[in-house]
Amino acid sequence: MRRECKTESKVGRRSMTEHNLQHTILLLTRTPAALNALLRDLPDAWTLRNEGENTFSAYDVVGHLIHGERADWMSRARIILQFGETRTFESFDRLGHVRESEGKSLGQLLDEFARLRSENLDELRALSLRPEDLERHGRHPSLGAVTLSQLLATWAAHDLTHLHQISRVMAHQCREAVGPWSAYLGVLHCAGHSS
Amino acid sequence: MRRECKTESKVGRRSMTEHNLQHTILLLTRTPAALNALLRDLPDAWTLRNEGENTFSAYDVVGHLIHGERADWMSRARIILQFGETRTFESFDRLGHVRESEGKSLGQLLDEFARLRSENLDELRALSLRPEDLERHGRHPSLGAVTLSQLLATWAAHDLTHLHQISRVMAHQCREAVGPWSAYLGVLHCAGHSS
Repeated sequence: MRRECKTESKVGRRSMTEHNLQHTILLLTRTPAALNALLRDLPDAWTLRNEGENTFSAYDVVGHLIHGERADWMSRARIILQFGETRTFESFDRLGHVRESEGKSLGQLLDEFARLRSENLDELRALSLRPEDLERHGRHPSLGAVTLSQLLATWAAHDLTHLHQISRVMAHQCREAVGPWSAYLGVLHCAGHSS
Repeated sequence: MRRECKTESKVGRRSMTEHNLQHTILLLTRTPAALNALLRDLPDAWTLRNEGENTFSAYDVVGHLIHGERADWMSRARIILQFGETRTFESFDRLGHVRESEGKSLGQLLDEFARLRSENLDELRALSLRPEDLERHGRHPSLGAVTLSQLLATWAAHDLTHLHQISRVMAHQCREAVGPWSAYLGVLHCAGHSS
């Protein structure tokens, strides 16, 4: 299984086919509904608590995903298509959501995320990207040369990294309550891995 | 934030209040809908691939969650309430789902999980557990003495550990496609933590 996957990944590194772009879009369409089903109307004890100072709660993560819809993915895709490597992306502010989220309920944030994601995917589909478009290069302020294909795959993987984070942050809230079972629960042994 | 949380956790270690039981139940009700929104009708490339030999795909995880609904959580709760520590739980078979899932589509498994979870939560609510019931002890074959409160908290944390796993397994499928961004994606640096 791993071998199959690696073989395909090697192809994917050279060229994200239109078929794979479809797979990416299909995942991107699901995230707002999945977060909505998991989080809407849950008690604050699950959604507003974090893992300690300077860490995100589930509420913060949804705000961060919204900020990405506004300032990251499609903005950068447009820069690649219009300017290629001649214009470096602006740095993304990991705390850019804090002011934007102020005074909003989690329900409002979930609605906003769903609306922005839907608009962005409409725009992405309307671009009717060809394989040669996906191979166009842009310039990331820290990573250097990246392709449009890599940017779009990262959009999907970024959703998954934050779903992974939300499950870990929520599990943290019952870390003590599970007693000796904590030894068996992998999520309680995850250190986060993000900078 | 962390301090608040720790204070409550210390209370939680002594006694899961009825209020916290409600929180646990509220999370347990969400998992089937969240997995349904994330996974149903996604291409097999997302849902049937795993992280290598002897690892779970998202499909396998849903099968494993179903097996837990049949053989683990409420079965063990009934044993605690009926026999206390005098009857050790049967060991849970981590691969018990393999034969049960055979020939079934992911959609069928998602339906089955939703139905069984709903039935189990109906049964849990009907028990109208009092604080003193939650403090009753049972005997786990490896962990020794555990409380009903710990078992129920673990049911919720187990959902979260597998949501954490699903997001990691799916992210693994675009590990190469993201190119240099892999450095920033925490989920790609998660080793799994489960035995």
